Amino acid sequence: MREHFYQDIEFAHHGQRVLVACNMVTSLDGKVTADGNQPASLGSAFDRRTMGVIRSHFDAVLAGGNTIRLHPYYLGVPSALESVRTEKGLASQPLTVLLTRSGNLDPASPLFEKAPRTPIIITSTAGAKNLPQPIQEQARVEIMDNPDPQSIIALLQETYQVRRLLVEGGPSVNYQFMQAKLLDELFLTLHPSLIGKRTDLGLSAGDKVLEQAKDIKLLTVHQQEDEIFLRYRITW
Amino acid sequence: MREHFYQDIEFAHHGQRVLVACNMVTSLDGKVTADGNQPASLGSAFDRRTMGVIRSHFDAVLAGGNTIRLHPYYLGVPSALESVRTEKGLASQPLTVLLTRSGNLDPASPLFEKAPRTPIIITSTAGAKNLPQPIQEQARVEIMDNPDPQSIIALLQETYQVRRLLVEGGPSVNYQFMQAKLLDELFLTLHPSLIGKRTDLGLSAGDKVLEQAKDIKLLTVHQQEDEIFLRYRITW
Repeated sequence: MREHFYQDIEFAHHGQRVLVACNMVTSLDGKVTADGNQPASLGSAFDRRTMGVIRSHFDAVLAGGNTIRLHPYYLGVPSALESVRTEKGLASQPLTVLLTRSGNLDPASPLFEKAPRTPIIITSTAGAKNLPQPIQEQARVEIMDNPDPQSIIALLQETYQVRRLLVEGGPSVNYQFMQAKLLDELFLTLHPSLIGKRTDLGLSAGDKVLEQAKDIKLLTVHQQEDEIFLRYRITW
Repeated sequence: MREHFYQDIEFAHHGQRVLVACNMVTSLDGKVTADGNQPASLGSAFDRRTMGVIRSHFDAVLAGGNTIRLHPYYLGVPSALESVRTEKGLASQPLTVLLTRSGNLDPASPLFEKAPRTPIIITSTAGAKNLPQPIQEQARVEIMDNPDPQSIIALLQETYQVRRLLVEGGPSVNYQFMQAKLLDELFLTLHPSLIGKRTDLGLSAGDKVLEQAKDIKLLTVHQQEDEIFLRYRITW
């Protein structure tokens, strides 16, 4: 696989703290869905490759239930990137972490059927009861009735030795990490499209305007045809 | 005024057709407002300078009533750019065009009190009756009860010799020009901030997903500190 501009990036050291990044692709008008549909419809083949390269730096990749129901695949890297990971001392695949209050997941989806590692499902007491029986065997279920980002990170760090976590949406999951001031980096791809529908969501969606970060630094800018790839470092 | 990367840009020729561009600044999550507030709060001093340089290429600058009520200034250029305009054969200031169905405008705003040219107000029959008396004298009122972008452009071209029109929002005005497939260019500034509130609007806001453009080409990319300035050409 030829060189990618995100292949050899470095991350700031945070000592004991878990580094949290978010990667999203949006339209030029800031949308991650079109008519509420599948986020993956936005990105190009190159953006999907970029998604894999970004994941290659992380111990775990987390997504919310809606995102996973729309796109039910393991949040992993292509096999060509497995050796890149192991050379850096990482597991060959990142851990997939699903956040679902309801536990509405499909055991027949490729996410479970073809998982290279046992996915973690963080869900409520009721959600755990609602999980289809096969998933109880295919996944590791962690019950958290009020899964705030701080507790999720603590769990992943203590039980699963996660030091770098990548959050891939949806908008309300991203918002929670921003609101908790735990997001350290944002990888943003701008796809050359316009959605225009008022009710489609942007990359972060919550009830209140976020408290302003102390600093948001634009680290790198890359253009690939008509897409632009931006990496930001956020200090809260 | 020292050189700006948008100072000497060229535009495609469209023969008899009016060229329409849009210039907007958004947060990283695609918002143009924060808690519904003033769009101008987003941009840096450099972005405001950029806004003037972009306006320097256009015969007229159009904005909707909400945008003008939030930011009631003439949509002009700083005096240093007037000679740049006249050297190119343009009037020293672009024409300000306001689109307001209601006619709710404040005659004491700097937009009217300090206007270098008589602003045009495009409004409905009822809106024209609602306009405060001083504005009837300070502005030129054009009555259009169904002001679709095609008719607005025709009016500006035929009556005011406009060949290049810049649209500066708000989101529903931008959407109308996109929906009518009359937007040729988009100047987009990404401001390093996160808003996060679900109900704040993006740069284009309408009821339906827009029909996909045939092509959206990324013409130029400029970085200035932590802001990024993108110029796109749209083919419908």
